[in-house]
Amino acid sequence: MTIDAPPRDRPDGPIDLRSDTVTRPTPGMREAMARAEVGDDHYGEDPSVRALEEYAADLLGHETAVFVPSGTMGNFVALRASAPVGTEIIADTEAHIVTYEMGGLAALGGVQTRTLPGLADTADPAAVRAAIRAHDIGGNYNMVRTSVLAVENTHARGGGRAVPQARLDLLAGIAQDAGIVLHCDGARLWNAAVARGVEPRRLAAPFTTLSVCLSKGLGAPVGSLVVCDAGREAAVREWRRRLGGAMRQAGVLAAAGLHALRHHLDRLAEDHLRAADLAALLADAAPNRVDPKLVETNMVLVEVTDAGRFARQAAQAGVLIGAISPTTLRLVTHLDLDDGDIRRAGSALATLLRAEPTTP
Amino acid sequence: MTIDAPPRDRPDGPIDLRSDTVTRPTPGMREAMARAEVGDDHYGEDPSVRALEEYAADLLGHETAVFVPSGTMGNFVALRASAPVGTEIIADTEAHIVTYEMGGLAALGGVQTRTLPGLADTADPAAVRAAIRAHDIGGNYNMVRTSVLAVENTHARGGGRAVPQARLDLLAGIAQDAGIVLHCDGARLWNAAVARGVEPRRLAAPFTTLSVCLSKGLGAPVGSLVVCDAGREAAVREWRRRLGGAMRQAGVLAAAGLHALRHHLDRLAEDHLRAADLAALLADAAPNRVDPKLVETNMVLVEVTDAGRFARQAAQAGVLIGAISPTTLRLVTHLDLDDGDIRRAGSALATLLRAEPTTP
Amino acid sequence: MTIDAPPRDRPDGPIDLRSDTVTRPTPGMREAMARAEVGDDHYGEDPSVRALEEYAADLLGHETAVFVPSGTMGNFVALRASAPVGTEIIADTEAHIVTYEMGGLAALGGVQTRTLPGLADTADPAAVRAAIRAHDIGGNYNMVRTSVLAVENTHARGGGRAVPQARLDLLAGIAQDAGIVLHCDGARLWNAAVARGVEPRRLAAPFTTLSVCLSKGLGAPVGSLVVCDAGREAAVREWRRRLGGAMRQAGVLAAAGLHALRHHLDRLAEDHLRAADLAALLADAAPNRVDPKLVETNMVLVEVTDAGRFARQAAQAGVLIGAISPTTLRLVTHLDLDDGDIRRAGSALATLLRAEPTTP
Amino acid sequence: MTIDAPPRDRPDGPIDLRSDTVTRPTPGMREAMARAEVGDDHYGEDPSVRALEEYAADLLGHETAVFVPSGTMGNFVALRASAPVGTEIIADTEAHIVTYEMGGLAALGGVQTRTLPGLADTADPAAVRAAIRAHDIGGNYNMVRTSVLAVENTHARGGGRAVPQARLDLLAGIAQDAGIVLHCDGARLWNAAVARGVEPRRLAAPFTTLSVCLSKGLGAPVGSLVVCDAGREAAVREWRRRLGGAMRQAGVLAAAGLHALRHHLDRLAEDHLRAADLAALLADAAPNRVDPKLVETNMVLVEVTDAGRFARQAAQAGVLIGAISPTTLRLVTHLDLDDGDIRRAGSALATLLRAEPTTP
Repeated sequence: MTIDAPPRDRPDGPIDLRSDTVTRPTPGMREAMARAEVGDDHYGEDPSVRALEEYAADLLGHETAVFVPSGTMGNFVALRASAPVGTEIIADTEAHIVTYEMGGLAALGGVQTRTLPGLADTADPAAVRAAIRAHDIGGNYNMVRTSVLAVENTHARGGGRAVPQARLDLLAGIAQDAGIVLHCDGARLWNAAVARGVEPRRLAAPFTTLSVCLSKGLGAPVGSLVVCDAGREAAVREWRRRLGGAMRQAGVLAAAGLHALRHHLDRLAEDHLRAADLAALLADAAPNRVDPKLVETNMVLVEVTDAGRFARQAAQAGVLIGAISPTTLRLVTHLDLDDGDIRRAGSALATLLRAEPTTP
Repeated sequence: MTIDAPPRDRPDGPIDLRSDTVTRPTPGMREAMARAEVGDDHYGEDPSVRALEEYAADLLGHETAVFVPSGTMGNFVALRASAPVGTEIIADTEAHIVTYEMGGLAALGGVQTRTLPGLADTADPAAVRAAIRAHDIGGNYNMVRTSVLAVENTHARGGGRAVPQARLDLLAGIAQDAGIVLHCDGARLWNAAVARGVEPRRLAAPFTTLSVCLSKGLGAPVGSLVVCDAGREAAVREWRRRLGGAMRQAGVLAAAGLHALRHHLDRLAEDHLRAADLAALLADAAPNRVDPKLVETNMVLVEVTDAGRFARQAAQAGVLIGAISPTTLRLVTHLDLDDGDIRRAGSALATLLRAEPTTP
Repeated sequence: MTIDAPPRDRPDGPIDLRSDTVTRPTPGMREAMARAEVGDDHYGEDPSVRALEEYAADLLGHETAVFVPSGTMGNFVALRASAPVGTEIIADTEAHIVTYEMGGLAALGGVQTRTLPGLADTADPAAVRAAIRAHDIGGNYNMVRTSVLAVENTHARGGGRAVPQARLDLLAGIAQDAGIVLHCDGARLWNAAVARGVEPRRLAAPFTTLSVCLSKGLGAPVGSLVVCDAGREAAVREWRRRLGGAMRQAGVLAAAGLHALRHHLDRLAEDHLRAADLAALLADAAPNRVDPKLVETNMVLVEVTDAGRFARQAAQAGVLIGAISPTTLRLVTHLDLDDGDIRRAGSALATLLRAEPTTP
Repeated sequence: MTIDAPPRDRPDGPIDLRSDTVTRPTPGMREAMARAEVGDDHYGEDPSVRALEEYAADLLGHETAVFVPSGTMGNFVALRASAPVGTEIIADTEAHIVTYEMGGLAALGGVQTRTLPGLADTADPAAVRAAIRAHDIGGNYNMVRTSVLAVENTHARGGGRAVPQARLDLLAGIAQDAGIVLHCDGARLWNAAVARGVEPRRLAAPFTTLSVCLSKGLGAPVGSLVVCDAGREAAVREWRRRLGGAMRQAGVLAAAGLHALRHHLDRLAEDHLRAADLAALLADAAPNRVDPKLVETNMVLVEVTDAGRFARQAAQAGVLIGAISPTTLRLVTHLDLDDGDIRRAGSALATLLRAEPTTP
């Protein structure tokens, strides 16, 4: 694994485990931005955006890709290109699209979301099949119709679990049988590929549309990509324009993203190792609050009594962490952290965990 | 129990168990319509509409009521009056508002729905509390915010179960603690009141808004009512107009609805007895396909191998039934059916059930 | 002209010139409602609704018709069936759909409206052509696309003017050349037909979709019809359901509507004569405030200094009138007014007009 | 006037007059991007974004500013923060927000737009006042309500005219009297300020909200700002997130924008001189097709027989131009053009114009 820009010294400040979105561009990315050849992407004339889109489409084995300013927009335009107004998208109960995207699918797109617990892992295939609805069942002609099945890989709220390939293929079969679209919220698809040891294109193969992110583990400053078939591209671009996501000389961002795709994919394994190390440290201190076996990529979930209070205490101890529920913390490793950061953060958090009541 | 218009002879045709919406107006309703004093309800000047709205508000112990052409519109305008764009309504996984209303909350209202299995009965109160989301948990500032908790009583897809009063009061407490609105889809609230032996206003007390229907068990030809506090009335009427639900001399419909509310409430007990009789007949024939203990109001659920095929066979045998899933039939008793109809339908369906495989 | 139910004695109260929507059902309509054969229109099984839909489709020379509870809903579902989200409908600056329908096309349908002054009469055909936009003009690839041209006949805010047939045909040609849909808001199409002395189907011929009303001049209590081609019917019915406009035993309303269509069409000529008489009376009193030559159907516009104040004074004098702008009154004749009402109203309003300043 | 980076040699290719959006970042901007201190703007922690927002708010004399990826998003979030669903925004007939933003206000925001010809210049103030509507006029309780008056300065489709200060103040008075919000689509507000010789904050003073662009005349690669009062900021940021416009290390873009604001404002005068020169050259060749007196900023409008055909011919001659109507070309000067470019383009276009028929 070669990395052009090793993790930098953390500036004098707290160790930030809140998310892998907090990384700052590496010197290599800075240089790529400074040198980027650009044009007006609103006219489709930015060579760096085009290069990124072509590279990503190829990497994921689909016909086309469209650069967008965020994962939220990526999911929206990909899904809206497949889901007509008044239809329904099925997603996991904890999916990012129904939790953290401000209700945009309904608010902006007029599309209903319906959640199914454990879609990506434990849900019985029969339950998934039964959840997909058509207008024409037994005269229930005004039943809402399912248009898309959406899977998140890795799961943000599930602690970064990578969906097994067999599960993806199973869901693809179900979607195909039902004549609906399968979408991947692949904000951290790269982590899943590295963790499972498969090519990204293999993980992407079962899907009709994907949204993948450049500014999480890969460390690029801004941007996501919608990856899909050529037939859907016009609708994706139309919705991107409507949302105000068509930018001008976006090549400065795209160049950084392309650099990240080329150089930071394999190094995600380091983040995964560090997450495993961190989980082990914390499980030593509080075995019933952290389960290292659940750590598959770059996230560690920790159960505490009061996540808000714990996060404030951690911040005072120099470690920033986020909560995903009133009692669940999420720690995320990334490009801007090195082994020393993990040791120091692990030590500080272990101390706080030991002060928690024994039973979660 | 006095009934001005006893169930009429069914016209020469099939026995219709598809829904209690199929009832035709009784002679008493016809006369009420013919004599109704009317005005232009768009100007708020229809005396019969006003009388109905006042009667219903009083019957349910709330400040005001608004007449609308359907239950679908009733739920929408009541919910939209409380749920801003981009917020989330929590409802049961099988709720009518997320199943049979064409995705209108998202499509027309920009509101996300989030479903919880067993909201009305089995869901753990802690799970209900945890499902309610606020913007401000631990920095997850872009989490979608819950605005309304919606309960259906009785449950259409749950086979007409009446929600226990204690459960309603529990949910009211949860909603109040979270500072969100509690809405009742009370299309068949009347059946719940009769089945539980409580006054409708007692069932309605925990709710901020309700939608109740006149054209189901009560037998009126057209119409529902949104029941709420005076402060919400302007928004309810504004959304009713926007949807095109403000009608002109709607008093002809309201008069029938008022007649139904006055004369057909108590007689729902007959429909419940007939549903119990029907369930018993069918359970005799196929004990593992019908559970008479689950019949609390006017519905009977029957598990079969192929609901569509079974419904077609039943229609050939002179009995119309509907399916709520590929393997579940729903039989509904109502004002246009008498004991003879139930016996004949029960006999025909029992014959078909005996021909089904032994194991569902 | 035969009328089964001549205008009734106005009940003891003010003479109501606010709108032709205030009429109450005649004895003939009442009887039609009382005898109506009905079914569940949600299942498509109400014979009276079907009869009305077939009668109206035939009368207007189109393939199909769908009954809806109001003109507002009729316009919405007809337009939404042709106008995708994010496209644009061109209408007159004063059109009902952009003035009195609560912004529903945008709010519920996601469709932009663009207004053109004088669309129905004075606008230069070249200006109409130029207003229609396509995505592909000279690289303006993100220009909003026009999907529908909407004409109102008669014009409510234009004082009930009937659009000349030649103008309708001209607009139809423009729409056809541009490949867009031509819609008629024909709430008072019946008045236009009677005023122009042509068959309704001739007026309807240039249009792809129409919305026509039963509860204005025709005097039925509730309801409008969307009239269109068979290919659009499913979308119209889908949007009707989504809005909550699919009613149950709607045949009681449809029967009144069918009666009105059969018996009250020709008699609109009486309303037109009375409007002309009223305009003449008022022009005598205030020649520069009323222009009798503009009265083509059942409306009279009157310019005053302060429409709100004038309307309050008129109400005290026993005449109800409405304002369409801060200085413009609109008087409407209808089925519930006879010659004596017109004389008395004309006399009371003339007195008030004489008290207005000489110059409007 | 000091400019850190004079216009660069145009790379070997056509002279691009299509828009001022096509400019590529200068060396100064590139360096600013390379050195930018950044953080996660989704958490509000990007120091460069904060610096830009503070600088812009101060420059325009308003309390706060929010960085967004495009002018389309800037207008949407600013307007949606003031315009509730179902209300109406009044704008010029040719406004960018109703022409080039894909119908987003309706499609995504549920807000109706109503257009008025000549809002920014010729429309009678009385007509502007009359166009603003309230619910409560004379009983027209269901009239759509106006929430915002939107003015574009300079006018893109009006050929870059700068709205006179007196007109802005007049419109501000009208908006204030009516109790509605005044919004400025100030994508090219900077050009208006330079052309009128006033401070940007004077032009911004009459407005409640503004959207201003960094990637047009100022030459920054990506980004716009919404400028408003502190009370509206939360809503602006909420809608930005919902649209997917909250980016991560957006400071790389903001640094370029801040550089452009600091260094490229005054130099817009050069673009204006060059536009005047170009107009003079073309008016010499075809006096009735170009009016130099209308050139106030960096745009020249040219009337031709067939804009699409003319643009293709110009492209063959090495000059890229765009059309804003089937017969109107728009030429735009900008940072990437020097005097030689203008002479060469002027010469090539003059030749083509002489070949046009004499009468437009």
